[in-house]
Amino acid sequence: MAKTTPGRFFEDFRLGEVIRHATPRTVTTGDVALYTALYGSRFAVQSSDAFARGIGYPSAPLDDLLVFHVVFGKTVSDISLNAVANLGYAECRFLQVVYPGDTLDTTSEVIGLKENSSRKTGVVYVRSTGRKPDGSKVLEYVRWVMVNKRDESAPAPGDHVPTLQSAVDPATLGSACPTINGNAYDYGLAGSPDQFGDYAPGEKIDHVDGMTVEEAEHQLATRLFQNTARVHFNQFAQAKSKIGRRLIYGGHVISLARSLSFNGLGNAFHVAAINGGRHVAPLFAGDTVFAWSEVIDRAELPGRTDVGALRLRLVATKDRPCADHPLRTGKDYDPAVILDLDYWALLPR
Amino acid sequence: MAKTTPGRFFEDFRLGEVIRHATPRTVTTGDVALYTALYGSRFAVQSSDAFARGIGYPSAPLDDLLVFHVVFGKTVSDISLNAVANLGYAECRFLQVVYPGDTLDTTSEVIGLKENSSRKTGVVYVRSTGRKPDGSKVLEYVRWVMVNKRDESAPAPGDHVPTLQSAVDPATLGSACPTINGNAYDYGLAGSPDQFGDYAPGEKIDHVDGMTVEEAEHQLATRLFQNTARVHFNQFAQAKSKIGRRLIYGGHVISLARSLSFNGLGNAFHVAAINGGRHVAPLFAGDTVFAWSEVIDRAELPGRTDVGALRLRLVATKDRPCADHPLRTGKDYDPAVILDLDYWALLPR
Amino acid sequence: MAKTTPGRFFEDFRLGEVIRHATPRTVTTGDVALYTALYGSRFAVQSSDAFARGIGYPSAPLDDLLVFHVVFGKTVSDISLNAVANLGYAECRFLQVVYPGDTLDTTSEVIGLKENSSRKTGVVYVRSTGRKPDGSKVLEYVRWVMVNKRDESAPAPGDHVPTLQSAVDPATLGSACPTINGNAYDYGLAGSPDQFGDYAPGEKIDHVDGMTVEEAEHQLATRLFQNTARVHFNQFAQAKSKIGRRLIYGGHVISLARSLSFNGLGNAFHVAAINGGRHVAPLFAGDTVFAWSEVIDRAELPGRTDVGALRLRLVATKDRPCADHPLRTGKDYDPAVILDLDYWALLPR
Repeated sequence: MAKTTPGRFFEDFRLGEVIRHATPRTVTTGDVALYTALYGSRFAVQSSDAFARGIGYPSAPLDDLLVFHVVFGKTVSDISLNAVANLGYAECRFLQVVYPGDTLDTTSEVIGLKENSSRKTGVVYVRSTGRKPDGSKVLEYVRWVMVNKRDESAPAPGDHVPTLQSAVDPATLGSACPTINGNAYDYGLAGSPDQFGDYAPGEKIDHVDGMTVEEAEHQLATRLFQNTARVHFNQFAQAKSKIGRRLIYGGHVISLARSLSFNGLGNAFHVAAINGGRHVAPLFAGDTVFAWSEVIDRAELPGRTDVGALRLRLVATKDRPCADHPLRTGKDYDPAVILDLDYWALLPR
Repeated sequence: MAKTTPGRFFEDFRLGEVIRHATPRTVTTGDVALYTALYGSRFAVQSSDAFARGIGYPSAPLDDLLVFHVVFGKTVSDISLNAVANLGYAECRFLQVVYPGDTLDTTSEVIGLKENSSRKTGVVYVRSTGRKPDGSKVLEYVRWVMVNKRDESAPAPGDHVPTLQSAVDPATLGSACPTINGNAYDYGLAGSPDQFGDYAPGEKIDHVDGMTVEEAEHQLATRLFQNTARVHFNQFAQAKSKIGRRLIYGGHVISLARSLSFNGLGNAFHVAAINGGRHVAPLFAGDTVFAWSEVIDRAELPGRTDVGALRLRLVATKDRPCADHPLRTGKDYDPAVILDLDYWALLPR
Repeated sequence: MAKTTPGRFFEDFRLGEVIRHATPRTVTTGDVALYTALYGSRFAVQSSDAFARGIGYPSAPLDDLLVFHVVFGKTVSDISLNAVANLGYAECRFLQVVYPGDTLDTTSEVIGLKENSSRKTGVVYVRSTGRKPDGSKVLEYVRWVMVNKRDESAPAPGDHVPTLQSAVDPATLGSACPTINGNAYDYGLAGSPDQFGDYAPGEKIDHVDGMTVEEAEHQLATRLFQNTARVHFNQFAQAKSKIGRRLIYGGHVISLARSLSFNGLGNAFHVAAINGGRHVAPLFAGDTVFAWSEVIDRAELPGRTDVGALRLRLVATKDRPCADHPLRTGKDYDPAVILDLDYWALLPR
């Protein structure tokens, strides 16, 4: 009779297990149009076939975060349906360009398990991999989530916490970016004169604009990604929760902040890796998202003179402009901060 | 001067008349992306070109209900602009696979007319047919609606109530499903292990999840289908009505319930026919839709060993989870029930 | 450090200067689907590849206003980020058919500057041109906006107010419409029997229906067009303004009114030129838009017997049906009027 799934609980995961996720998904120019409508992204490479062709792509590639959300969405019903909290990301690398017409599916390997002392929950670490049908990898990342136990008294598997890199080695970046023809990169058309060499570690950039979020918008986005997490869609159930409201998918915040970051980082056209990220506080419909960035580091890519990598901290706030780069109040995050993301972006040199 | 149409009234219809509807519509991957964003559908065949090709389609077909809504939408301005109520559906068959790039148009034949005893309204029965430009049929269904009279004293045509089948004969199903290669059907990737043979009549399945609906969502959907029914869009007029609010297109509820039904019926990939359906109560923005299904019957398709048909009752509720399969309270519907749909779905064997 | 742009102020513009705008944009069937979902447009030529091919297009062209919005959106961050008011349009001509897959970019020439007597603001006139990557023109229009000065005491350039035509010469219309095969134009399928010759100057048409607008809808639209005007998206900032709410992009109103005008002008399939337009009052979410049209003039196109041009006034109101064609109360606009647009549309003869 159990044809529906209540989702896995902590004691259902096994170390080393590989989970294949439904549903495979062909991404199209329809998804691209929706991504633009949802986030207002303006990076020229992803927006214009002509611009992309000019610098060496066969056509405009998909926005990297659209690829991330589609690959991520598939994991939810197997990994995080009974999750209490999405704790972190690490070692996320974009490994191949994705174009409209490509099909993506996802598998996850359980790489860590640790029961909490309360015995009510445990932390599950998975390495999820998005692939094309030929098996080639498109995206890989580690995520860890706190998952409820079905039964407190159930024996837990022995603890195993994986060792994770604090940042992706820049020498491994660039697989999802073809060698570009820098002479053909039109900075005027791209909307910013600033190249890789114009940014220096320590530099902070306020992205100025704010974007207010509506329930219909985040629901459309999250369904587009076939992400089934109940907290995003079911107001009837959420009304009975402590929070009382629908929670907005954390990836929605990342994409909003990344789109806002165009104003200041207009040539940071490719997200090559995500070193880590924390959803510091929830976002709700009606809130306005602002963002600022800090340049943390700069790296050349081995053997490549066309692009360089900036390590960026991208901070998003709600209902709080970012002219003064809010981050911490004492040891805690500033109460307006909702996202603290650490990633590598590529820019033309 | 009468260049605009106020819509037809009951006395404007003639038995046997065939009405050609505007506007022809080419369906695209853009529509597919929007359908996913609006409903979160996750059936692998419609989601992945690679999956569809693997089992014998040239590419992913359109979701059957997207085809239904596009064909249906065209009929509204000619048939139901002055309708008081959408009373029922019958004999709905999907007759041909539809792919992105296909163009659809619709005609309707008036097959029944019956004035109500009040003489203020009458019931109009139409058989609507969706076609590709070569004239081949894509979809056929009977719908009956209660339509206002312009003038109570107008003579009505003689009553004629058509005889309708209570269910589509399963021997006629399958035209819109190519012979599939069952060996290539990947149940892991599809998200459910359950095949045709795993379901038995009498079985009831709670689809668990709920989906809250926003005004922007149903308006986007209904405009996408070029459905012009005023009650869905015009709050200024609705505010003056007894209901006071915009009514949500009944098809929106059907698609939400069908998408929710993936959790429990993940391999029921093709809606082959709709035997009947009733919009028991209206849905409004802010309500949360839940759904459950009952297996009513099972049938093999003549000469086909690749797929079998399940006759399913799909019940949707608002603000009421379906763990106990709510349907009736005494002779009446449970007050939470909003949809009672009877359809045939195909599953791999 | 100034990697972000606060937008140009009045004293930053130079007469004769040509500004290249970011971001180039490939338009796709995804954009077409979203345009349909946002506005419910039903013109057969733009909706059906088969219909378009029948009359001589290679496939369905993009809706003219979608082209307008994409070309316009790019100008905002350079021209009107610090605008106080969008004052008018003139000399807008559609010069080339646009199909899914085409890429558009925009440049603007500053053709007029006039400081206001307050010295706090000035009027900037630009002629904006949308082009395909081969440099061929797609669309040209003049717009003038009132822009804040950064510094009241800053010297202003000498005043220059360009001479603008009060209407586009009909002899110059038609570049963006191929010669159509009138015999193949199926009026039944298009949804209206009325041709060019059936409309007479002075004729007024109420478009009957109303459409209520939601915040999510206009935000999705405006981001789709990569229009970055802050007033549309940032409720946090708007809450502190006199208006207190997000303003809806004026182009959203134009597209809603144009879509409503299908009921009465179903064969006016191509917007060939916009002679002028005024956003009389702002529209806010929750308001319901109605529209009516007046035929101002009629013109044949030199050497063409396939199509003729109607000069139309398109008036939109909020929360006010248009059966009595509201326009003025004394010398002022009727308080319900929000748009007064003057354009040329082509219809088959």
